[in-house]
Amino acid sequence: MPHIALPDGVPGIRGPMMFRPETAKPMNELVDVLLRGPHTLSPGERELIGAYVSSRNDCFYCHTIHGAVAAQHLGGDEDLVRSVKRNFEHAGISDKLKALLAIAGKVQQSGRNVTPEDIERARREGATDLEIHDTVLIAAMFCMCNRYVDGLATWAPENPDFYRQRATKIAAEGYTAVTAAITFSTAGASAA
Amino acid sequence: MPHIALPDGVPGIRGPMMFRPETAKPMNELVDVLLRGPHTLSPGERELIGAYVSSRNDCFYCHTIHGAVAAQHLGGDEDLVRSVKRNFEHAGISDKLKALLAIAGKVQQSGRNVTPEDIERARREGATDLEIHDTVLIAAMFCMCNRYVDGLATWAPENPDFYRQRATKIAAEGYTAVTAAITFSTAGASAA
Repeated sequence: MPHIALPDGVPGIRGPMMFRPETAKPMNELVDVLLRGPHTLSPGERELIGAYVSSRNDCFYCHTIHGAVAAQHLGGDEDLVRSVKRNFEHAGISDKLKALLAIAGKVQQSGRNVTPEDIERARREGATDLEIHDTVLIAAMFCMCNRYVDGLATWAPENPDFYRQRATKIAAEGYTAVTAAITFSTAGASAA
Repeated sequence: MPHIALPDGVPGIRGPMMFRPETAKPMNELVDVLLRGPHTLSPGERELIGAYVSSRNDCFYCHTIHGAVAAQHLGGDEDLVRSVKRNFEHAGISDKLKALLAIAGKVQQSGRNVTPEDIERARREGATDLEIHDTVLIAAMFCMCNRYVDGLATWAPENPDFYRQRATKIAAEGYTAVTAAITFSTAGASAA
C-alpha cells in the first residue's frame, strides 16, 4: 500500500504524478528531453541507460517499464535488455555504450565515483561531451525517479504484458503526452 | 577540472546548466516548485531538507549553497543549518521537520528504505500527505542534482562568502530567474 493516498489502480510513478501535477510537468519535460530529444544516442540506447540504473537501484517499476520501452525501440529485443541489466560488458551493444553504462553505474552509486579513467574510456570509444553529460544526467535523473517511486511505496503490476502495452504507447507518443492523457482520462473515471 | 568542457569560472550546477539549457529549464522549474512554491513547509524548512540530503551525499557545492539559502530564509542562522547537517535530531527545529528529515535520510540511501513507521512518525507530528510527498521528492531531486554536480566534477569555490552572496540573490529571486540571468550575462561575456 502506498505511504500516502494516491489514486487507486494507477501504477508506478503515475500515481504521485497525478497527486502532484505541478511537479509532474517539469519532470516529464526533463524525461522527454533526455530520453527522446534529438540526439546522437538513439532513444533505445538512452532507455537502456535508464533501465540499467533503475535495475541497480532495484526499482521494479522503473527498470521494467524502461526496459520495455528500450526493447520497443530496439525491435522488440527483450533478451538484449536483460543482458544489459545482467552484465552490460558482455551484452551485444557498442563499445561506446558500454563505456557510457560504466559511467552511469558509477553515478548510480555517487557522482564522486566517476573517474578521469571512466571518461577517458568513453572518449576513446568516440563519446562526445554531450553524450557524457547526458549519460550522467540520465543516470542521476533515474536516481531521482527510482527514489520517488519506491520512497512512496507505489503499486507496480507484476504482469509483463502491462509494461509491454504501456511501452508501445510511450515509444510512440512520449512521456509528457502519455501522462497528460492518462491524468485526464483517469481523473474523468474517478469522478464517475 | 570538470570531466567535460564547461564554461570557465562558472561554479557548481550552473556550468552544466549553461552547457545544456534544454535540461536546465525543467530542472530549475522543478526546483522552484518544490523549494519555493506555495506550501505549508516554509522555504527555509525545504532548503534544510535539500542541504541535509546534499550533505549526506557529500556534495560540497550543493550542501553549501542550499545551506546558505536555508540560513538566508531562517534569519541568517548558520548555526542551525550546521546542527541539522550534523545531527538533526538534536537541532532546534520542529518535531515534524525532524520526522520529515528522517524520511529524507532514508530516501537518500534508497526509496525502499522508507518504512511505514517512518511515515507514522511524520503523521503523528502533524505531517500531511503533501508534506510527505514533497519531502520524498525533494530528497530524490537532490540525489539527482548532487550526482549531476559531482558526476561531471564541476568546480566549487571554497570561500563561504561566495555562497552567502549567491544565497541572497536566490532567496530573493528564485532559481529559474537567477540562472536565466547568469546564463544570459555569461553567454554575453564569453562571446566578447
